[in-house]
Amino acid sequence: MLGNFSYQNATKLYFGDNSLQYLNEELPKYGKTVQLIYGGGSIKKNGLYDEVVALLKANNKVIVEDAGVMPNPTVDKLYEGVKIARDNQVDFLLAVGGGSCCDYAKAVSVSIYCDEDPWEKYYLRGEEPTCKIVPVGCVLTMSGTGSEMNGGSVITNPVSKLKIGHVFGEDVMPKFSILNPRYNFSLPKRQMVAGIYDIFSHICEQYFSGEDDNTTDYLAEALMKSVVHSSLVAIENPEDYEARSNIMWSATWALNTLLAKGKTTDWMVHMLGQSVGGFTDATHGMTLSAVSLPYYRFILPYGLSKFKRFATEVWGVREEGKTDEQIANEGLKALENWMKQLGLALTISELGATEDMIDGIAEGTFILDGGYKVLTKEDVKSILKSSL
Amino acid sequence: MLGNFSYQNATKLYFGDNSLQYLNEELPKYGKTVQLIYGGGSIKKNGLYDEVVALLKANNKVIVEDAGVMPNPTVDKLYEGVKIARDNQVDFLLAVGGGSCCDYAKAVSVSIYCDEDPWEKYYLRGEEPTCKIVPVGCVLTMSGTGSEMNGGSVITNPVSKLKIGHVFGEDVMPKFSILNPRYNFSLPKRQMVAGIYDIFSHICEQYFSGEDDNTTDYLAEALMKSVVHSSLVAIENPEDYEARSNIMWSATWALNTLLAKGKTTDWMVHMLGQSVGGFTDATHGMTLSAVSLPYYRFILPYGLSKFKRFATEVWGVREEGKTDEQIANEGLKALENWMKQLGLALTISELGATEDMIDGIAEGTFILDGGYKVLTKEDVKSILKSSL
Repeated sequence: MLGNFSYQNATKLYFGDNSLQYLNEELPKYGKTVQLIYGGGSIKKNGLYDEVVALLKANNKVIVEDAGVMPNPTVDKLYEGVKIARDNQVDFLLAVGGGSCCDYAKAVSVSIYCDEDPWEKYYLRGEEPTCKIVPVGCVLTMSGTGSEMNGGSVITNPVSKLKIGHVFGEDVMPKFSILNPRYNFSLPKRQMVAGIYDIFSHICEQYFSGEDDNTTDYLAEALMKSVVHSSLVAIENPEDYEARSNIMWSATWALNTLLAKGKTTDWMVHMLGQSVGGFTDATHGMTLSAVSLPYYRFILPYGLSKFKRFATEVWGVREEGKTDEQIANEGLKALENWMKQLGLALTISELGATEDMIDGIAEGTFILDGGYKVLTKEDVKSILKSSL
Repeated sequence: MLGNFSYQNATKLYFGDNSLQYLNEELPKYGKTVQLIYGGGSIKKNGLYDEVVALLKANNKVIVEDAGVMPNPTVDKLYEGVKIARDNQVDFLLAVGGGSCCDYAKAVSVSIYCDEDPWEKYYLRGEEPTCKIVPVGCVLTMSGTGSEMNGGSVITNPVSKLKIGHVFGEDVMPKFSILNPRYNFSLPKRQMVAGIYDIFSHICEQYFSGEDDNTTDYLAEALMKSVVHSSLVAIENPEDYEARSNIMWSATWALNTLLAKGKTTDWMVHMLGQSVGGFTDATHGMTLSAVSLPYYRFILPYGLSKFKRFATEVWGVREEGKTDEQIANEGLKALENWMKQLGLALTISELGATEDMIDGIAEGTFILDGGYKVLTKEDVKSILKSSL
């Protein structure tokens, strides 16, 4: 049943192919010095950097550069970003990039006025901010993480091989996000499908928990069907605006808190995938796809009715003459077929993981208790081995 | 395809059976004098009035009473509410009731500091507020209108027999709403099903427009399926908390702006129903149910592919061996069967409308152009006659 909860999400979204112009409405609301956060420079090649800089200048902003945010933002990069912010007393953080840039901007936002070590405080100890938070805005160039409308922020420590997410509250969510589906067009196909699987996994990991037949389950199924439908169009034609716009919109709603309201959630695929990422630095979405089927096949007996529902509602599996197990397994088979059509990684070996890493990856996997079975470390190892 | 849009909805929701206590978090944010808005006194019978008054007093508020808001709030009641607010210089409007109370509170909120006649300015001329807006909060006792998380406000002028809705912007939406499914338990069954049909119609009227296969269509189908599922539980056992909580949550998402983003919408069932309401003072949801099937059967040929999709996705109609028309009509037949199970009005005669009112009702029906066919006044009369 729907449990008790509160809901509020005040992030303002500007969606569409002219949405960048709305920086002119948003920028005047914030202070003069803007830390411009971006990644490896693809926005310089496609012209977006120049457009954003022109809009910042037109709004009389002082621009402080913070480039080089990597796909899995590191603790060292976080320290660097905080130093840039402090040295320049920035008033606003504008992330132009994918979820990594947006995650990183949030991490910086809660660390500038924080005396403690942010990695230890927020990520290792999971504490909430008690300092002033510098506001964040986002111009999204890759759909997937949902970071544009939530408080999530994942940071990686390459030394300890730990990749940890913290979900901050309302105060840390972007004040606004600009979503232009066209910015996704130039992504390499591998990045596109990794993002698509990240979206799908966000939905699944909230869906596969609890036995209820509530509104949220129906909404989750709707978003899964929309992602599957549009992904099959986009894989054939990455510049199909309609498909990319629906994937972008689904991504936002897949992880902007709605699907978790009033119910339990699982998140073990992310825990497994993040630990694989800590050891391999592989693309986030690919780490999720590689561990998903082994994980779901492992827990299927414990959540049979939901896996059956997944099969019939999301994949249109017909029930006649089949046992519940057969129906549920046909659902996972349909999921597997779709993953193959997209060209997703189906094993962690493909991502560079080797048998000798299994113990370490298992050690780095946080075990959560919202799913259909609480895993033991031996279960984790067994799942990882079946993904080699 | 998904058009360009902006999205923001900052209303904070407190959901669940202990949600009223969150007044203690919200009330301190607003000024001292609170206009307490409610209806015919059912909240006095069930104890909610006493609970709210105790919480207001515990927060040191001065309470200004504004009782007697009717199911279809009138212009005269609006003038009375504005006078109460001005005489007492109220700082906050707390609506405790259904959508009518919440709609009315919004109408008062934009009129207190407005020099013009609010009926003429907002409802007849459809203008936006230019004055100070007094903030509104809502304790919802009946699910249906979605007024708890949107800017909608419908006011009726019994003299001119006009019932007109204005959708105000973000500034007029409730700052917070308290949603306790248990408050719905004591509603008479007729009110419950009228509210349920209002919810379903909100979804339908946004769904039956455009030819797209976008994320929003999937979300709309999800909410429809959830409402149908839970309504059949609630009609048997109105005190089933799970069913009532899912209906309540679906109601909020059916009309909190999400389903209209990036697409066209229809809303002719509401235009027809509201005009019937202006002539009969019948319950809002019943006026919608009475005109729905005649309207949908009339426009079906113009939106065939969407009506086919409605049949297969919402009602599980099988396609094999049938024409598109047969599939689409089976969907409407399934809708009709469900409406009969709930005991909804299927004709306007049941609501007191007579043949001699048809011309007047048609005259009072605003014709919108977002649906599959733009109606003529003759079309409207024909639809109304087939609902007699």
